[in-house]
Amino acid sequence: MIRRVHSKEVRAAARRKLQERGVSVKDIAEIVYEMQSPYNENLTMDQCIESVEAVLEKREVQHAVLVGIELDVLAEQQKLSEPLQSIVESDEGLFGCDETLALGSVFGYGSIAVTTFGHLDKNKNGIIKKLDTKNGSGVHTFLDDLVASIAASASSRIAHRQRDEEERLEEQRILQLNEQKEQDAV
Amino acid sequence: MIRRVHSKEVRAAARRKLQERGVSVKDIAEIVYEMQSPYNENLTMDQCIESVEAVLEKREVQHAVLVGIELDVLAEQQKLSEPLQSIVESDEGLFGCDETLALGSVFGYGSIAVTTFGHLDKNKNGIIKKLDTKNGSGVHTFLDDLVASIAASASSRIAHRQRDEEERLEEQRILQLNEQKEQDAV
Amino acid sequence: MIRRVHSKEVRAAARRKLQERGVSVKDIAEIVYEMQSPYNENLTMDQCIESVEAVLEKREVQHAVLVGIELDVLAEQQKLSEPLQSIVESDEGLFGCDETLALGSVFGYGSIAVTTFGHLDKNKNGIIKKLDTKNGSGVHTFLDDLVASIAASASSRIAHRQRDEEERLEEQRILQLNEQKEQDAV
Amino acid sequence: MIRRVHSKEVRAAARRKLQERGVSVKDIAEIVYEMQSPYNENLTMDQCIESVEAVLEKREVQHAVLVGIELDVLAEQQKLSEPLQSIVESDEGLFGCDETLALGSVFGYGSIAVTTFGHLDKNKNGIIKKLDTKNGSGVHTFLDDLVASIAASASSRIAHRQRDEEERLEEQRILQLNEQKEQDAV
Repeated sequence: MIRRVHSKEVRAAARRKLQERGVSVKDIAEIVYEMQSPYNENLTMDQCIESVEAVLEKREVQHAVLVGIELDVLAEQQKLSEPLQSIVESDEGLFGCDETLALGSVFGYGSIAVTTFGHLDKNKNGIIKKLDTKNGSGVHTFLDDLVASIAASASSRIAHRQRDEEERLEEQRILQLNEQKEQDAV
Repeated sequence: MIRRVHSKEVRAAARRKLQERGVSVKDIAEIVYEMQSPYNENLTMDQCIESVEAVLEKREVQHAVLVGIELDVLAEQQKLSEPLQSIVESDEGLFGCDETLALGSVFGYGSIAVTTFGHLDKNKNGIIKKLDTKNGSGVHTFLDDLVASIAASASSRIAHRQRDEEERLEEQRILQLNEQKEQDAV
Repeated sequence: MIRRVHSKEVRAAARRKLQERGVSVKDIAEIVYEMQSPYNENLTMDQCIESVEAVLEKREVQHAVLVGIELDVLAEQQKLSEPLQSIVESDEGLFGCDETLALGSVFGYGSIAVTTFGHLDKNKNGIIKKLDTKNGSGVHTFLDDLVASIAASASSRIAHRQRDEEERLEEQRILQLNEQKEQDAV
Repeated sequence: MIRRVHSKEVRAAARRKLQERGVSVKDIAEIVYEMQSPYNENLTMDQCIESVEAVLEKREVQHAVLVGIELDVLAEQQKLSEPLQSIVESDEGLFGCDETLALGSVFGYGSIAVTTFGHLDKNKNGIIKKLDTKNGSGVHTFLDDLVASIAASASSRIAHRQRDEEERLEEQRILQLNEQKEQDAV
């Protein structure tokens, strides 16, 4: 009988595979910081790390990471059948399954996440540049898109939360003003 | 040096793999016929076959077919690493990479294609039912979604063309009416 | 100066508009119940209502509801410019902006949500049937897709949570078994 | 009875609306040239114009243009209901329906189109910058995303065709070489 995999095992495997392929949570958080700090001067690296961690909790993200890295590793080991082997190994420009797989989990974080993903995919910030198969050694055809997708989702998550926080502070300010007025009126 | 794969080779490989996994163009065309004949009483199987052939000409579709079938076959051969092996082998309900990969090429055929895909994925018409990993032998976790995606795209393509044809006939009718009027006026 | 709209105002407006257009949370929850009860015999309507409420908390969903209903209402009042007025009013079959807008917020709930949306869009369960512009009075070209999208998202949300709950119970069982064994060993 | 709109009327309306809102085919083609000329030294503006024209032939694109510009114009005329009026008028950062609507037609041109859209949406090249509601006068909340979407689709279309052309030339070269060899052998 085929066993049912516990979500804890999926989560742990996704994180371990990322690490084995040379991508740390901090690497991804640095891209998030670069993307969001222009809009938020108080943003800290800790907040970016927390946001990446939260994205990595999502089942869809974990599954995409497992599938994408599996294909990269199999291509490195020359274990894919042709012509897929050559397509993945060469990070063929018109091959789009890497972006499609990565995009699947980006949609969940809103349209800002999708446009940020597109931007990162074109500009190859931070670790994404290092992973770009065409420049380096090893096959990272899927991994660079996965990293862009996690960074884009974590960035969008911060943008949405910043807005919530701003609204909370504004409400507090109005409340305090009203209390002050009431006291003055007494 | 890694060779660049010619698109002819990609096209041929995608078709061959579908056949090797037990899916013929006719099998997919039958689903298309089932989906579109209620809206088009003159629809023939030949038109459905032509539409499936046209969808199979698309690079995105061919790439998705190659990736999806590769993963199914590797899972059958117990060659994926854990926990991905168990997830793909069991066609785990919350695993969504199969639908995501298949959806990528569906979008190109408009929103009718997306909703038809959703319908086929739930109702498992025709060959899709036979492929459903949970019922049969062999691993077809990705293949059933790929077939649903090709059938959905081919169906949407027919709906769009039918409309074009209706408009062409209407124009012809108006033209003939006008010519008749002019002749009567003489 | 253009004012910045508080998210509380957006949330309240989206809910009010749905109600004004004849769609209650309960109507949507009934579709969710119909979709999910075959997979979950303990499912209650209260859980379905809770899930719909949670989906309605999402900014993307609220925005889509506001835009879609606005276009329906403007079409009813004959206030759109031609040819958009006729296209929306007739719920033109090849018009896909209604599905596209609705799909935007569905992606966030995983690929099960996308396929469920496609299914609901084709089968028009429950209130969706009543809203179908072609059958009833009033223009609901966008609203029926919005309802399908909220129901699909809420269904997917329940499927994911059910799995988490099953895993939690399983862990508890294993823990109790181990405790029992330890006690027996003493 | 509600009339059925002919696709010629939809096509003409979409093109006229773009023009009325200050966007020419040439404006969009210039973005395409900027995006694709680094990968294709022989690219001409005529090819970019032809590609934009081809994208504008698509029903999904025409529909999105009609809906998006309608909402921009209604917002300019203060004719949307609150809070949608303020959200669209201010091009509210977390409002995503503009990107969602524009993305719908981008998917059809493959994943390169999606990432190019994301890039253009962030970097606001050419006419997109001028349209950015926050900087200029008038409301162009939807239009800037529509232009980015058309430019992204036209760019992706060129990338795919360039590849086809390269393959055609390569085949010709091989054919000539073989003919030469045969002649030499004689």
